[in-house]
Amino acid sequence: MSKPAIYRVELGVRSYDIHIEAGCLDQLGQAMRGIFPGCDSCVVVSNEIIAPLYMQRVRLGLESQGWEISECLLPDGEQYKNIETWSAILDAMMHARLAREEPIVALGGGVVGDMAGFSAACYRRGVPYVQVPTTLLAQVDSSVGGKTAINHPLGKNMVGAFYQPRLVWIDPEVLSTLPDRELKAGIAELIKYGLIRDAAFFKYIESRGQELLSLQAEVVAHAIFHACRHKAEVVMADETEQGQRALLNLGHTFGHALEAMTHYKRFLHGEAVAIGTLMAARLSEQLGFASAGIEARIRNVYQAFGLETEVPPFKPAQWLDAMGHDKKNIGRKIRYILLRDIGDAFIAEDVKGDDIEMLLGSF
Amino acid sequence: MSKPAIYRVELGVRSYDIHIEAGCLDQLGQAMRGIFPGCDSCVVVSNEIIAPLYMQRVRLGLESQGWEISECLLPDGEQYKNIETWSAILDAMMHARLAREEPIVALGGGVVGDMAGFSAACYRRGVPYVQVPTTLLAQVDSSVGGKTAINHPLGKNMVGAFYQPRLVWIDPEVLSTLPDRELKAGIAELIKYGLIRDAAFFKYIESRGQELLSLQAEVVAHAIFHACRHKAEVVMADETEQGQRALLNLGHTFGHALEAMTHYKRFLHGEAVAIGTLMAARLSEQLGFASAGIEARIRNVYQAFGLETEVPPFKPAQWLDAMGHDKKNIGRKIRYILLRDIGDAFIAEDVKGDDIEMLLGSF
Repeated sequence: MSKPAIYRVELGVRSYDIHIEAGCLDQLGQAMRGIFPGCDSCVVVSNEIIAPLYMQRVRLGLESQGWEISECLLPDGEQYKNIETWSAILDAMMHARLAREEPIVALGGGVVGDMAGFSAACYRRGVPYVQVPTTLLAQVDSSVGGKTAINHPLGKNMVGAFYQPRLVWIDPEVLSTLPDRELKAGIAELIKYGLIRDAAFFKYIESRGQELLSLQAEVVAHAIFHACRHKAEVVMADETEQGQRALLNLGHTFGHALEAMTHYKRFLHGEAVAIGTLMAARLSEQLGFASAGIEARIRNVYQAFGLETEVPPFKPAQWLDAMGHDKKNIGRKIRYILLRDIGDAFIAEDVKGDDIEMLLGSF
Repeated sequence: MSKPAIYRVELGVRSYDIHIEAGCLDQLGQAMRGIFPGCDSCVVVSNEIIAPLYMQRVRLGLESQGWEISECLLPDGEQYKNIETWSAILDAMMHARLAREEPIVALGGGVVGDMAGFSAACYRRGVPYVQVPTTLLAQVDSSVGGKTAINHPLGKNMVGAFYQPRLVWIDPEVLSTLPDRELKAGIAELIKYGLIRDAAFFKYIESRGQELLSLQAEVVAHAIFHACRHKAEVVMADETEQGQRALLNLGHTFGHALEAMTHYKRFLHGEAVAIGTLMAARLSEQLGFASAGIEARIRNVYQAFGLETEVPPFKPAQWLDAMGHDKKNIGRKIRYILLRDIGDAFIAEDVKGDDIEMLLGSF
């Protein structure tokens, strides 16, 4: 087993560790014993895909340290990230009579983590939770930083809370069972950190395609650690997204709209954000912020990882509607995350509706 | 119009004013203009009873200051304080396309305030909200302190958030339309502050029955201000109920169980808490913390205000079940809020299950 890499997210009383270590899934019980000394019950939230793969190991590790476990299994998929499923998690917590200091554990990808986190935020006005992310996307993005949410029929992640986990426990070995398509969607998220704030990391990912896709342990652990570090640095500077945390939303305005227009079925989140990032790159060129060619360079990297880069042919009016641009705010200026260069994203406060319409007409 | 009384709740970046002034309902637009300078839209949440009485005045006051208003009207009653109604508020906020910095206004009693507050806590992971409480109970308790919640079929207020309002705007004149029964339930809450931490305030309420019941303006304003001050002092010392804020739950363990057993239909919250307080008083005597007679003295005051003081004849097993005492925790020691004297409540950490059963058998 490799040595653990630990990154401490410093947020005052809400500080916590991100622990990255191959094979660490079995040691979760011990880690939680240290963090929650007086507790003996927890609820493990997972889904019907992940539970058969890893629940038994998590259960054994927890039970060996005296934990009593209730399981709550969700259906798999973004389309279930809604009030009904969230309500079912709360039911499970109520039936387990979970006390206010007892934790819940999110074992799964971003959907499980977001919903378990939001359930923890609300149950008895807040109980602790632990993130055990099992997809690359969740390991490098959604499990860190405390953004929890569910979707609303009119918008993704519109109902939620800023609520930090007490521990993020990452075992890169679980990626061996991750479908190839989800691995690639996670790599898109690694690329995003490079685009936003670290050109050298972008080049690292660009140059290590083979090692990443074949899950070469050291390269994967290195990439996860630095992605988590980037995410944590941004969160520590701006926990509740008053400012620069919004940079992490590169590609999300278009990406969320794409997910909504395709009813969360055709694209994985990372796939939609990759396409959205290409749109943001083209907008950056169109407005003269980035030099010509940046969109093409990013597209090349995505394609090298087998990611889809074609913008689906929706009409501009459909895009605008899905992006929440009604008559009221099309007159206003809208904020977008744009690029000056690889590794240099910024918040553009004053993009005009006309420019967005021109962009949308160009695909 | 009387002079305003303003109490500042100091909670760092979450600080806010409690503004108490006869007739101030018409000035809400102006106050909100000062607090939310860049905003022009808000959602006013109210219910089918309160809206016909006061929505027009609130609307005119807001519109005169340039606010654009969307209304969201809820059915009236504790039985609607649930996920479905909360979800309907979120729908209204989505349809109004409320932005992240735009406020919602809770115009109504505790149910409206708790649900609007919890909606504000969750919509886009948090938008500001303003409490405009219209019942005495809401004016002196639930509108102050940021406890927001909805009920779960298995327990009251089990799903919620600690989320402070940006302003509490109290017009005592609206109590003129409050049903007599609700006024009395609110007076029970005034008595609670006296019991917990202020024997002189207890005596004041005890001696001003006639003035309170006839809504004599100065006495009512005085009582509201000091009740809000007590609530705020406790909240400032312990915002998220790690310790002494739990004192405010005097009578609530039994009271909540009573509400649940009667399906939130027979008792108003204040009425149930009054009966629960008598039970806590008897337990305090039984365990030797308070001298004999304290229960009788409190009962006399409740009766003078026409409050019901008879403990309904549920079986001990029903009580224990409704109080969430399953086999797992009946063996443990349970925390109760007890009294040493009028004005001196404390948290008893080690009440035994046997003592609770003995108490429940005594009614």
